[in-house]
Amino acid sequence: MHKMNGTTKKRLYVIGTGPGKTSGMTGEALSALEESDVIAGYPVYLELLPEKLKEKDKIATGMTQELERCRLALEAADSGKTVSMVCSGDAGVYGMAGPVLSLAEQYPEVEVDVLPGVTAATAGAAVLGAPLMHDFAVISMSDRLTPMEQIERRLRLAAEGDFVIVIYNPESRGRAGYLRKACDILLEVLPEDRPAGYVRQIGREGESVWLGSLKELREQTVDMFTTVYIGNSTTGIRDGKMITERGYLKKPSSTPEAK
Amino acid sequence: MHKMNGTTKKRLYVIGTGPGKTSGMTGEALSALEESDVIAGYPVYLELLPEKLKEKDKIATGMTQELERCRLALEAADSGKTVSMVCSGDAGVYGMAGPVLSLAEQYPEVEVDVLPGVTAATAGAAVLGAPLMHDFAVISMSDRLTPMEQIERRLRLAAEGDFVIVIYNPESRGRAGYLRKACDILLEVLPEDRPAGYVRQIGREGESVWLGSLKELREQTVDMFTTVYIGNSTTGIRDGKMITERGYLKKPSSTPEAK
Repeated sequence: MHKMNGTTKKRLYVIGTGPGKTSGMTGEALSALEESDVIAGYPVYLELLPEKLKEKDKIATGMTQELERCRLALEAADSGKTVSMVCSGDAGVYGMAGPVLSLAEQYPEVEVDVLPGVTAATAGAAVLGAPLMHDFAVISMSDRLTPMEQIERRLRLAAEGDFVIVIYNPESRGRAGYLRKACDILLEVLPEDRPAGYVRQIGREGESVWLGSLKELREQTVDMFTTVYIGNSTTGIRDGKMITERGYLKKPSSTPEAK
Repeated sequence: MHKMNGTTKKRLYVIGTGPGKTSGMTGEALSALEESDVIAGYPVYLELLPEKLKEKDKIATGMTQELERCRLALEAADSGKTVSMVCSGDAGVYGMAGPVLSLAEQYPEVEVDVLPGVTAATAGAAVLGAPLMHDFAVISMSDRLTPMEQIERRLRLAAEGDFVIVIYNPESRGRAGYLRKACDILLEVLPEDRPAGYVRQIGREGESVWLGSLKELREQTVDMFTTVYIGNSTTGIRDGKMITERGYLKKPSSTPEAK
């Protein structure tokens, strides 16, 4: 429990642990984890936590049992323990912040504190160079909770708006070929030579990078640990870096396309 | 200088320092700053740095001299000093990562290392609740480098795509009334009661929060230290928190509108 102004609050932290390595975590996230009695999370992410947190009690449930994990974490907090629920990246981006806050209405004594982390969009961007210098759209290809028509519509509108596009969860074993599907939609609007790139396992062992054109991206096979970037009309690849210009008034000389 | 594999590299870190407070910075960002001989940045942000960094040499140039700041930082790195260029939030989101990497081509001995930070979109989301549980678009209202028609077009397309919308730099002294302009465009597509919110001075002293409807947002006056959120069709405000549902297949009972 957390003492504040003399009163004892029951507390559940929902924590984004950043891209992977411990040094990518914020100071406040690390402090909250150290202060916690119990840490809840997806088993793979619990194993990535720093050594000194290994002794903490754990609530680990698999990928399809997220609501159950939220409930167990809230119950542990309600019983008086300080609990942290961890997510990779930022817990507020397709993460557990929403489900926890929704369920928390049933546990009025528990105060939920969402601590942001570095989300994959910006962590991967830093690896690729500077693709997010201008307006961007973040789209998940997961159709577990979203109809595919809605995803396709968003891809099309983002391309029409000349947004830089970041794709989360581009494909998985159960969703093979989804990246190709996304590229086919984008290619209805964007030129084949539009710069694209992806980063796999951002900030983790085995991190890998790919840069190329949208047409080439269509032929790639990726997985759910990959974050994909498609540039806007001012994005170029120079010296192995993907860079989007900050504005349209000064067009770079090396802009790869006229569109 | 930074020693690596026996060779000495000239190094410039481009660092996102997160939303404001030191505890919102990542471990690797803090380590890089401690290791640096020189810290470059916008004067206001340099003053927000932790006490122990106050003794470092500084390169401080004002808001319209960003390219000059990049050049001075690259020159300092090229002269053998380890240099950090700091930005609030994430240096890769409308930040200095792009200009530094572009200019760095003229300093081939300097290795530029972009270290990501928590960007305002997710830092503010954590304060409001969980608005970014689904696909979102990030749009800057600054027309310093982008024609207003392009900004308006993106707002319209993001609304049509049912994206959660995050607005950076909604207005400033020189751009009064821009938030109202943005709301007027969004109201052509979205219902008046669409949940909206903003956070001012995220993670800093004087942080403040506002929640309401898109129609009410139109009447607000904000500044460049404010990040604005407009929900998608499944976003609700419950118990003082702005929460977007993670998918469309399970619609929440308290969805505030039918659209």
